[in-house]
Amino acid sequence: MSTEKIPYKIYLSEDELPKQWYNVRADMKKKPAPLLNPATGRPVTADELKAVFCDELVKQELDETNAYIGIPDEILSFYKMYRPAPLVRAYCLEKALETPAKIYYKFEGNNTSGSHKLNSAIAQAYYAKKQGLKGVTTETGAGQWGTALSMACSYFGLDCNVYMVKVSYEQKPFRREVMRTYGASVTPSPSNTTQVGRKILEEFPDTNGSLGCAISEAVEAATSKEGYRYVLGSVLSQVLLHQTVIGLECKTAMDKYGIKPDMIIGCAGGGSNLGGLIAPFMGEKLRGEADYRFIAVEPASCPSLTRGVYAYDFCDTGKVCPLQKMYTLGSGFMPSPSHAGGLRYHGMSAILSELYDQGLMEARAVEQTQVFEAAQRFARVEGILPAPESSHAIKVAIDEALRCKETGEEKTILFGLTGTGYFDMYAYAAYNDGKMSDYIPTDEEIAKSTAKLPKV
Amino acid sequence: MSTEKIPYKIYLSEDELPKQWYNVRADMKKKPAPLLNPATGRPVTADELKAVFCDELVKQELDETNAYIGIPDEILSFYKMYRPAPLVRAYCLEKALETPAKIYYKFEGNNTSGSHKLNSAIAQAYYAKKQGLKGVTTETGAGQWGTALSMACSYFGLDCNVYMVKVSYEQKPFRREVMRTYGASVTPSPSNTTQVGRKILEEFPDTNGSLGCAISEAVEAATSKEGYRYVLGSVLSQVLLHQTVIGLECKTAMDKYGIKPDMIIGCAGGGSNLGGLIAPFMGEKLRGEADYRFIAVEPASCPSLTRGVYAYDFCDTGKVCPLQKMYTLGSGFMPSPSHAGGLRYHGMSAILSELYDQGLMEARAVEQTQVFEAAQRFARVEGILPAPESSHAIKVAIDEALRCKETGEEKTILFGLTGTGYFDMYAYAAYNDGKMSDYIPTDEEIAKSTAKLPKV
Repeated sequence: MSTEKIPYKIYLSEDELPKQWYNVRADMKKKPAPLLNPATGRPVTADELKAVFCDELVKQELDETNAYIGIPDEILSFYKMYRPAPLVRAYCLEKALETPAKIYYKFEGNNTSGSHKLNSAIAQAYYAKKQGLKGVTTETGAGQWGTALSMACSYFGLDCNVYMVKVSYEQKPFRREVMRTYGASVTPSPSNTTQVGRKILEEFPDTNGSLGCAISEAVEAATSKEGYRYVLGSVLSQVLLHQTVIGLECKTAMDKYGIKPDMIIGCAGGGSNLGGLIAPFMGEKLRGEADYRFIAVEPASCPSLTRGVYAYDFCDTGKVCPLQKMYTLGSGFMPSPSHAGGLRYHGMSAILSELYDQGLMEARAVEQTQVFEAAQRFARVEGILPAPESSHAIKVAIDEALRCKETGEEKTILFGLTGTGYFDMYAYAAYNDGKMSDYIPTDEEIAKSTAKLPKV
Repeated sequence: MSTEKIPYKIYLSEDELPKQWYNVRADMKKKPAPLLNPATGRPVTADELKAVFCDELVKQELDETNAYIGIPDEILSFYKMYRPAPLVRAYCLEKALETPAKIYYKFEGNNTSGSHKLNSAIAQAYYAKKQGLKGVTTETGAGQWGTALSMACSYFGLDCNVYMVKVSYEQKPFRREVMRTYGASVTPSPSNTTQVGRKILEEFPDTNGSLGCAISEAVEAATSKEGYRYVLGSVLSQVLLHQTVIGLECKTAMDKYGIKPDMIIGCAGGGSNLGGLIAPFMGEKLRGEADYRFIAVEPASCPSLTRGVYAYDFCDTGKVCPLQKMYTLGSGFMPSPSHAGGLRYHGMSAILSELYDQGLMEARAVEQTQVFEAAQRFARVEGILPAPESSHAIKVAIDEALRCKETGEEKTILFGLTGTGYFDMYAYAAYNDGKMSDYIPTDEEIAKSTAKLPKV
């Protein structure tokens, strides 16, 4: 434990970067429920998954016993281009809030994809390349995942086909251009390049598209072409595994300076960032070595943990993926068009769902306008303009810091700042113009969409 | 000198950050020519300048003797939020080019303003605050300077009025929203808020605006309101002084690892980045302690160093600022609408002009399409999507690295990567679509605009 003054930003040296990812499932006594094959109702086999996903990633997806999985050298080299990510002491925010709390954030936005998504994209691209594949397919909504995957594929010389939800394709032309600059082909979904796309276009010629439809198109494109596989940017356990690089770096940096967080806060859509950030700390809690509070923050417009049910459901609206037991609002749930596209997902990672169900993690839902208030407050004192998704964590971190101001407690707060909002300025414009609305689904809406869960 | 392997990114610790800016004029035997008052034809006095600029900044502008000027603690604290900026070893680019050259770049884009502009913005805002001013005014073209100043003013609670060239205001709504998020008021120029604006609008109601007009409006706004001053993001010697934090960090990092660059390359519009990057190295050259090649890279569409004349000229098209001796294309020169807005300036910093005139620095002009080719090549292997301005330096760094490949020389190349291109995707779109054009002014055009220089 160091006694020197904590710097504004703690950067690890390259030697201190994690060389293994941490698989939190190994330390869970009760494991997440297995993925089910919707056709048979039985746990999916590795062979079934290998038709859709890369072989090595299937292995990682199903691995519940190995606590540490080595990071290949090629991935480590890529990580070194943009990692370590800084652990920042929010001195200026603390001062502005006049709080006795000590606030830290792990900032993942200092790379061109603008978020933590690159941590898993490069891993998935690497395994695809190693398997000798020609390329991968994926879907993207807000565009951060698609951008990250484009960068990763460009690095390894892989073909990258992104199905981008049509309304985003049209409203976010700049995200699309970043992907094109990295050599990806970007197709607005639904498209006439797939059977499922043509079918939807025939039925609803004026549709704006949806994430569910884009997933179905990407899966069809991957499985119908020689040498392609489908990749996904969140929800899956393999993605949470790769993202543990966030939490591991964070833990090393905090240990180095003798910092112990009282609570760890992260936004949660599919769970990739939160799962990666908390994993090593959760491991200590599971092993009885230390205790922490973990808080998942979700949008009030899409409250899977706080208002959903814990049950088997489809991961996609097209119902082509395996069934996963998770907190879900129902795969048919249509969240209102909020500005935090990365959090508009009906379900939640199986790992996080199980930890939440066991009472090891809390969850809180926050409304959009409050989130942008917090984002602006943060931006003005800490310099960084945060992504709408990340700002959900900022909102709760500020709430907790203000609570400390009331009670006088000097708590240590750590939150994940997943990315920057440079491609979300239309959302900030709505906020600046006072035109942002908050929509919270009614109990009837949620009851209706969760009533249609598959029977298993 | 360290013998350990050079990491991908060298981050200094906070203790190693420069505590003084370096004033290269102190080491120049022949100083830059003094600014002249256009009304009297005599050197401007401090008192004359103080009507427009903050007192302390006037002192810095006129200081030719003090080699080091202390950085106030408040500015150092702000620097610590986003500095040190990394010095990056471009291992992946070297590999892709198959060059024996060693390539380094100093990356200034890891802050929300997206560029090095913040280094001077925070200094100028600090001195304005210290003088007890209410606010500052400025102009912005592409928007990077306006964004940086908005952030700095927000931090110190200063009012910030930005006159944004009308065509940029309309074409770059997202830049405008970033400034608004930081609390700045952004006015499309020409506007009816100033006399000069109203006059221009009366004469040319459909004008798209120009930097020259925006400067004139900002100066009028500053001098006609109690408690306001005008600030500028480049060209002035005070700005180059603040930007030496780039070069000083760079030098410390290189010395630490025993790296000596053979050549230092930077893009040059008004000269703030290049001047700041090369200053401490140039100091060594001026004092006869070491030798380096310095290469200024400018757009072929606006070639002030390579095709301009060295003479007294107005810094603005509105002719309200002092006369400066510099390499200039004439203050009436209208550069073609290239995508590197930050380099579309008719003149060049007085310091850099004098160094160039003394043969201490080289200059090279490059065409836009080649610049975007280099930008894309760089982005695909180094991860970072560069600003069009910064990509001018990338283009020449790649050219020099490929020359080393031919000759087999293991030269060490350092270039300045001033910022990111996230708000320039319309430009990348033009490149991706094959719709980018190159325009080089004819000799007649340059002769015509330089024929109208003021007589002094």
